[in-house]
Order: sequence, then structure tokens, then C-alpha cells
Amino acid sequence: MRISSLKKSDMSFDLDTYLSDKKKLVEDRLNSLLRNPGAPLGKLEESIRYSALAGGKRLRPILAIAACEALGGSADNVLPIACAIEMIHTYSLVHDDLPSMDDDALRRGVPTNHTIFGEAAAILTGDALLTDAFYVMVNEGLSSGIEPELLCEVISDISHAAGSHGMIRGQAIDLQIETFTEDNGDVSLQDIELMHSLKTGALIEVSITTGAKIGGADTKQLKQLALYGRSIGLAFQIVDDVLDVVGGGDMGKESGNDARNDKSTYAQLAGIEASKKRASELTESAVGALSNFGESAEPLKEIALYLGCRKF
Amino acid sequence: MRISSLKKSDMSFDLDTYLSDKKKLVEDRLNSLLRNPGAPLGKLEESIRYSALAGGKRLRPILAIAACEALGGSADNVLPIACAIEMIHTYSLVHDDLPSMDDDALRRGVPTNHTIFGEAAAILTGDALLTDAFYVMVNEGLSSGIEPELLCEVISDISHAAGSHGMIRGQAIDLQIETFTEDNGDVSLQDIELMHSLKTGALIEVSITTGAKIGGADTKQLKQLALYGRSIGLAFQIVDDVLDVVGGGDMGKESGNDARNDKSTYAQLAGIEASKKRASELTESAVGALSNFGESAEPLKEIALYLGCRKF
Repeated sequence: MRISSLKKSDMSFDLDTYLSDKKKLVEDRLNSLLRNPGAPLGKLEESIRYSALAGGKRLRPILAIAACEALGGSADNVLPIACAIEMIHTYSLVHDDLPSMDDDALRRGVPTNHTIFGEAAAILTGDALLTDAFYVMVNEGLSSGIEPELLCEVISDISHAAGSHGMIRGQAIDLQIETFTEDNGDVSLQDIELMHSLKTGALIEVSITTGAKIGGADTKQLKQLALYGRSIGLAFQIVDDVLDVVGGGDMGKESGNDARNDKSTYAQLAGIEASKKRASELTESAVGALSNFGESAEPLKEIALYLGCRKF
Repeated sequence: MRISSLKKSDMSFDLDTYLSDKKKLVEDRLNSLLRNPGAPLGKLEESIRYSALAGGKRLRPILAIAACEALGGSADNVLPIACAIEMIHTYSLVHDDLPSMDDDALRRGVPTNHTIFGEAAAILTGDALLTDAFYVMVNEGLSSGIEPELLCEVISDISHAAGSHGMIRGQAIDLQIETFTEDNGDVSLQDIELMHSLKTGALIEVSITTGAKIGGADTKQLKQLALYGRSIGLAFQIVDDVLDVVGGGDMGKESGNDARNDKSTYAQLAGIEASKKRASELTESAVGALSNFGESAEPLKEIALYLGCRKF
């Protein structure tokens, strides 16, 4: 299977329209979830809204919706959980950007939270988005018709993916607080893949499997979509690494950040060409994992192709 | 009702033994919950364990257990949720101690997390404890026999108490990121009470109501125990304010911190004598709220008297 043969397989599906429709759905719901109508707008709420409504691709919630719809479920069912996942993703960005972490001044094309609201407010803003995400999951999830048993499973999956064995461990590895390997040897491509699979991959994968579970996936379908999720998660990050070196793309922050921060990246270790090849292989693997899903998985397929083949 | 008439009402109950027994129960469980037996001890795990196992009164989990037992429930049932609440409390301490927040060097008598592990690790440690608390709640809660419906309610209650309308808002007010009052006038005693009721009170109250719900409380019992929780939460904080001025107690940090940080405290605004009086009134109110519970609520009663009457 070659990437070129996978492109534009269905001319009737327009990815740009799909992405912008779902993005609007997510942002409208986030906008109402993050406003307390009974109180005046305080600085904490303002700071939460600044970061959560600052744009961004909304990749994770869109993937959750697309996975749910691929199984025949409705976007309404999964939307609150999708928004909660985006709140968790946003908290992680606000904290990762802090001076003691990656010390970034720009995010999604605008000044980072702490440069506007101060460091203490940024820490609290992240804490609030993370905590409130669980409140949204449970209350809005029940309201949208998810059964308590399934909701407990969803909360377990998401907290595991975001916690000390998932995303947070990935960030600790990235900051070199946690070592890559037991033998403390040189950093290998496998180490970088592990870091990415935790830091970015875990939440992307759980977005997809959660959407699939809410859509009613069976065990085999879940396994296939988990492979899809792992593959696009890593492809996405390798493409980001390449874009960070060669520039381009629409990342909303300056190129070369990782190099300046003296971080080993996939692109540095493997080289640009090998990185592009790996991203293509992963994209093929992701598309291959969708082979049993038929037309309802068209959005997932197009998203994989978009993420893995962004212009370098 | 006078405090003096409430003391030592039951010579057969020994509070010190009760507190140390329950503390051991909580710490043994936390110790096993916060260890990943399949992996070597990494720096992140070490940092999490440093702060979560550094001692402390374990007031919140003990209150959850005492409330559950007051209703005839068992400690085993509520223990995982009690530990999850303590993880949330610990995360809030680790973040509150950060240089950009309260900038404290000592906590529970030992150096604060960031002075040992660095600021980035401390932020991630707090994030991990908060996220993993929800993983523990849902997985260990189900294993201990809590029904999914009730577990969803518990997760809703706890995330609300800890989130942007509860504990985090209280910390934002304390840091003067969020204003006390809409009119931005002088800080009043009512404002300070609001701040305390959010920053400390919300998590204490939800510890008690959660324990009570798991113990099978009816609506009336829940209302009484919520009043008990609100009263001891505020009394506890006013006593802390007084101890911060006059010294004494066993707070594990130096006296006078609040004054140095230029924070308005209850004791400064109301004076020492009025503060002691208010703490006594609140303690009477807490003990009064237990009047329908009989002997099974003896631990809750003794805890209220202990917290409200610590030696000044």
C-alpha cells in the first residue's frame, strides 16, 4: 500500500469542511461549559477561557467524534467527553509552557497564558482545567446518555492516559526529569518514540478509543482503532519534529524551539528523510487499521493522511 | 451548649489511638497505591511519594472514614476514595508551596517538594497526584464495591469541591488573583470566611459528605453532616490563623508566614480573642449537628473538639 494511492479516494468528502464543522461544534460547547452564568467574569475564569478558547486544531475532540461516528454513534453523545479531553490537553499546554518547563512565549499564535496572567494564575488555570474536565465528563456525560458503567470506564481510561503512567510521564521524560532508559545510555529512536507515545500519543489514542467505546465498538474494533490512534499519534509528532527543524506548517510558535532547548528530537537523530519515511509508514499503518470500517471511517482516514503528510 | 461541657464526654474513646490507627490505614494504602511494582523507581514516582508520604495529619481521609463509620459503613469501602482525596489535598499543597505561589520552604516539617526536586518536577508531581486521584477513585472505588451510579456522584462532588468553583477559586482569592468582593472594597471577615470556605472548607466538607454517602446516609443525615463539615472546616482555618500569629501548634512550618506574605487573615482582622470565640461557636455548631447520630459519631465529635480547641 502506498500513500499516493490513498489520497483523495473519495472526492465527495471534504476534509476542510469536516474539520471546521466539528471544530465549531467543540468550541461552541467549550464556550458554554467554561462560563459560569451566575457570577461576574473573574480573573481565573478569564484566564481559563483565554487558553481554552484560543483556537488550535481541536484534533483530540474531533478524533473522538470521528471515532464515535465511525461506529454509528452520534456526535452529541461523545461531545462532552471530547470537550473534557480538550480541556485536559489545554491544561497540559498551559503547564508545559511555564518558565520552569518549556518556557514558551507563544502558543497557538498568541502569547502563552503565563505571559498574560502571570505564573501563579497559569498554574491555577491548568489545575482548574484538569479538575473541571472530570466534572464535565461525569455530569455532562450522564446528561448525554452515557451509562454510569461506561462512564466509569471512560474516566479510568482518560485518567490513565493523562496521568503519571501516560502524558505526565512523557513530559517528565521530555524535560529529562525522568530518564529514557534504565541503562542511562545514549538516547535512541526507540526512546524518543516512547517519549512521544506517552507525552502526545496516549491522549490521542484514548480520544479515539473513548469515542469508539461510546459509539459501541466491540473488542476487535477497539483494537483496530487503538492501532490507528497509536500510529497517527506518533506520525503527528514526528511530522512536528520535522517541521520544527525545517520550518513551515502552522504551529503557531517559532521553529527551532526544540534545538534551542537542547532536546533530542526524532528528526535530529534519524535525519529528515528517514523521519518522513517513518511518518509515511505510520500513516499507512493507520489507514490499514481502518480497512474493516467502510465509508463511515472516511473522516478518520482523511485525518490520518492529513496529519502524516503535512507539507514539509 | 458550652464547649467545656462537651469535653471528654466518653472516657472510653481515645482520640489519639483512633487518629493514629486511621492514619496508618490511610498511609499503608497510599504507599501501595503510589508504587508501580512493574517498573524501577523513577524520579517522578520518587517525587510523588516524597510529598504524598511525608506525613501530615491525614485529616480529610480520616474524616471520610469517620463519616462512613458514623453511618454504619466500613472503612474498607471508603478507603480508596479517602486516599484519592488525600492525593488531591497533597497536590494542592505541592502547587501552593511553589515560588510563584506561597513560596514556602517547609511543609509538614520537611523541605517542600520544589526545593528538593525542582520547580518543573513539583508542577508535574502535583499534576500527577491530581490526575491519578481520579484513576484511583474509579478503579479502586469499583473494586471496593461502590456502585457505578454512586461513584459517578462521588467523582462529581469531589471534582466540584476541588475545581474552579471550590478549592482552586479559594487559592486564587488567597493569592489576590481573584477579587474577594464585587465592589473591590476593603476585605471583610465575611470575605475571609468565603476564601477559607473555598480554599480549605470545600475539600473538608466533601470528605465528610462523600464518606457519609458511601456509608448510606439519607438526605437529612447528609445535610447535618454537611453543616458539621462546613463548621469544622472554618474553625480549623481560624485556629490556624491564630496559631500563625501567636505561634504554637504543630504546623510543620514557621509562624508568621501569612503576615510576611502580606495576607489579610481572620486573626488580624477580628483580633485573637474574637477569633477564638468564633472558632468555639463553630465547634459548638459542628457538635450540635451530630446530635442525631448517637455513639457511632463519637470520633467525629472528638475530632471537632480537637480541631476547634487546639492549644493557642
